[in-house]
Amino acid sequence: MAHLFANRLQNTQKSFIREILKVTQDPEVISFAGGLPNPQFFPVEELAAATAKALADHGRQMLQYSTTEGHAPLREFIAARYAAKGVPVSADEILITNGSQQGLDLIGKVFLNQGDAMIIERPGYLGAIQAFAMYEPEFLPVPLLDDGIDLDSLETTLHHHHPKLFYAVPNFQNPSGVTYSEPVRRATAHLLTRRDTIFVEDNPYGELRFAGNELPSMRNYLGDQTILLGSFSKVVAPGLRLGWICAKPEFMDKFIIAKQATDLHSNYLAQCIVAQFLQDNDLDAHLATIKAAYKKQCDLMVEMMVEHFPEEVTFIRPEGGMFIWVTLPEEMSSLALFEEAARLKVVFVPGRPFYVGDGGDNTLRLNFSNCDEARIETGIAHLAEAMKALLVRGNALQPV
Amino acid sequence: MAHLFANRLQNTQKSFIREILKVTQDPEVISFAGGLPNPQFFPVEELAAATAKALADHGRQMLQYSTTEGHAPLREFIAARYAAKGVPVSADEILITNGSQQGLDLIGKVFLNQGDAMIIERPGYLGAIQAFAMYEPEFLPVPLLDDGIDLDSLETTLHHHHPKLFYAVPNFQNPSGVTYSEPVRRATAHLLTRRDTIFVEDNPYGELRFAGNELPSMRNYLGDQTILLGSFSKVVAPGLRLGWICAKPEFMDKFIIAKQATDLHSNYLAQCIVAQFLQDNDLDAHLATIKAAYKKQCDLMVEMMVEHFPEEVTFIRPEGGMFIWVTLPEEMSSLALFEEAARLKVVFVPGRPFYVGDGGDNTLRLNFSNCDEARIETGIAHLAEAMKALLVRGNALQPV
Repeated sequence: MAHLFANRLQNTQKSFIREILKVTQDPEVISFAGGLPNPQFFPVEELAAATAKALADHGRQMLQYSTTEGHAPLREFIAARYAAKGVPVSADEILITNGSQQGLDLIGKVFLNQGDAMIIERPGYLGAIQAFAMYEPEFLPVPLLDDGIDLDSLETTLHHHHPKLFYAVPNFQNPSGVTYSEPVRRATAHLLTRRDTIFVEDNPYGELRFAGNELPSMRNYLGDQTILLGSFSKVVAPGLRLGWICAKPEFMDKFIIAKQATDLHSNYLAQCIVAQFLQDNDLDAHLATIKAAYKKQCDLMVEMMVEHFPEEVTFIRPEGGMFIWVTLPEEMSSLALFEEAARLKVVFVPGRPFYVGDGGDNTLRLNFSNCDEARIETGIAHLAEAMKALLVRGNALQPV
Repeated sequence: MAHLFANRLQNTQKSFIREILKVTQDPEVISFAGGLPNPQFFPVEELAAATAKALADHGRQMLQYSTTEGHAPLREFIAARYAAKGVPVSADEILITNGSQQGLDLIGKVFLNQGDAMIIERPGYLGAIQAFAMYEPEFLPVPLLDDGIDLDSLETTLHHHHPKLFYAVPNFQNPSGVTYSEPVRRATAHLLTRRDTIFVEDNPYGELRFAGNELPSMRNYLGDQTILLGSFSKVVAPGLRLGWICAKPEFMDKFIIAKQATDLHSNYLAQCIVAQFLQDNDLDAHLATIKAAYKKQCDLMVEMMVEHFPEEVTFIRPEGGMFIWVTLPEEMSSLALFEEAARLKVVFVPGRPFYVGDGGDNTLRLNFSNCDEARIETGIAHLAEAMKALLVRGNALQPV
């Protein structure tokens, strides 16, 4: 009955990354492939205490159906945190979602007709490409440079098309680790002003800055021409599946209708648990612990890469987040490297799936957040070995 | 920027029922309007114990990202429960969703192109109409009779159209309380056999039968031409937002892709909590308590209706679930009745929104699950008073 599937599903395949992650089930394999936060820092006991307290205080209420918008104290916390960072937002502008991934789906649902144009970064976040692809837009990929979106290419794209959306991860992007500099933010906003293009700022890693200075949200430049996406996955825990959309009331009305049709409301138990956790604990202290650890892991990975990688291999040093982006010599395929490295029990994500259209064959993503120091040392050394083997063989373009 | 909204959202309005429910915030109002299970029976302490145990045993794991398919022990429990009811199903055929509402959304996403035909019951479940409407199908409403779908109308519809889906709630339907009889099930299956129409059996209330005999699932007649939807909302608690899709592997592959694009996976904490709860508690004993209470509430409501309602008013006595469907005299508008009853501090849901296209102006839905006996007695007496006032005034068709 395969002919019954909707067109949007006809050409999809199971996620390449998902398939890769199956290799990592082997405990001997050192994986830089996943995009997981380090579970060592999940506040298990604090969440257990918050759950016990919340269930004892208002258990019947938190187990019942609830409002589509989400738990009011949680929405107020999020709004207050934005305000404290210089982004004035009201709690009415917050909709709680199942992780920010659902935010992407709802944006697609509310804005995208088949064939509508939208800008994505090149390379771009794979989960966003997958979410938006369900609404069959025309993707307009604009390259990322080391300091953010390529402004010339952005200007040309805006000149020739009328994109409804520009989806970006301006802080420590997945997969590239790139952060938009302040001048790039300003120039991007300038190009978008007085156009009918909504800037979607996805910021799952924004709280994980461990170097450099915090930079303004695009909302500070573009006001309510922006939609913000946030997540508790990297600051509390991803298994709770809680994120949010922040948008002006006109958009929020439609998001609520779409969310209600999609799943009525987000898990209310989890919302009450997180609200209680945030009330009883110091989130900034918790984040300081995570950031110190991630910085150490990132620094070590960079140090090992400088020491061991062939000099033809380049990479971008991130100021936060969870990923380092590596560019191999033009003629070296990261798929071939994957095969070679897997034999040495090290895996990563080849860059190809992050590119809509062509490109990225010689790129790869390394994750440093979910790896201890011993495994980083061994893993990077083995990965360098695999690179050198490919360079010597000189047949890097033929997948082995 | 309203012109940026996708076509699917252009004509939507906030849910009528949602607006009605706002009236019910007044504690003096007796509400038969909601579709809520009775929170008195939420197993708060048992869920608190299950949470503490699960977090202590494998807290880090249950707070991490997880598989799209869902928590294996939970999928196995669901498959075993189907098997025990004579529906052989493997755990691989189960996908955990955010309530069965998300199951509806994923079915729309996987199967519906704009303009595809699908059958829905008339009256039909409003949440399903809203979920599928996002994919802009052509709805083919087929009337419900007291013992299930109108077979003549179904046959005619199948003769003239090629619906991809037939969405139904065969047990204690929302809103009508109707249950498909065994002969209607058999005849429905006969009409669908060797056609390219998938029967979607939504069964949120199936475990809440308090009268009559359990009847076979449509999967027993149609095999994997069916997709089953289930939910823990009415048997454990809705705030957990856990339901499932049960479908053959060919469909499951696509559901997993769609679910991954939509929100990666369902709340893993909640899945582990419910799995632990089901392991440590006797679900059947828990259900027996709920069913006994709902039966008592339903019986009392029916008794009061027989005693007080004008004889021109008819209703369907359900064998389970949460709703009683009432039909007023042809010329009496349930919207007018709503206004009249609200003055007497009683509310319900007028039937109109459950009809795609015309009809249902003289129908209404009463909920009996979430109301204590005193309020049922007073509420039905007042509702009867409002009906009599409208009958006497004789201007029932003019909304007041």
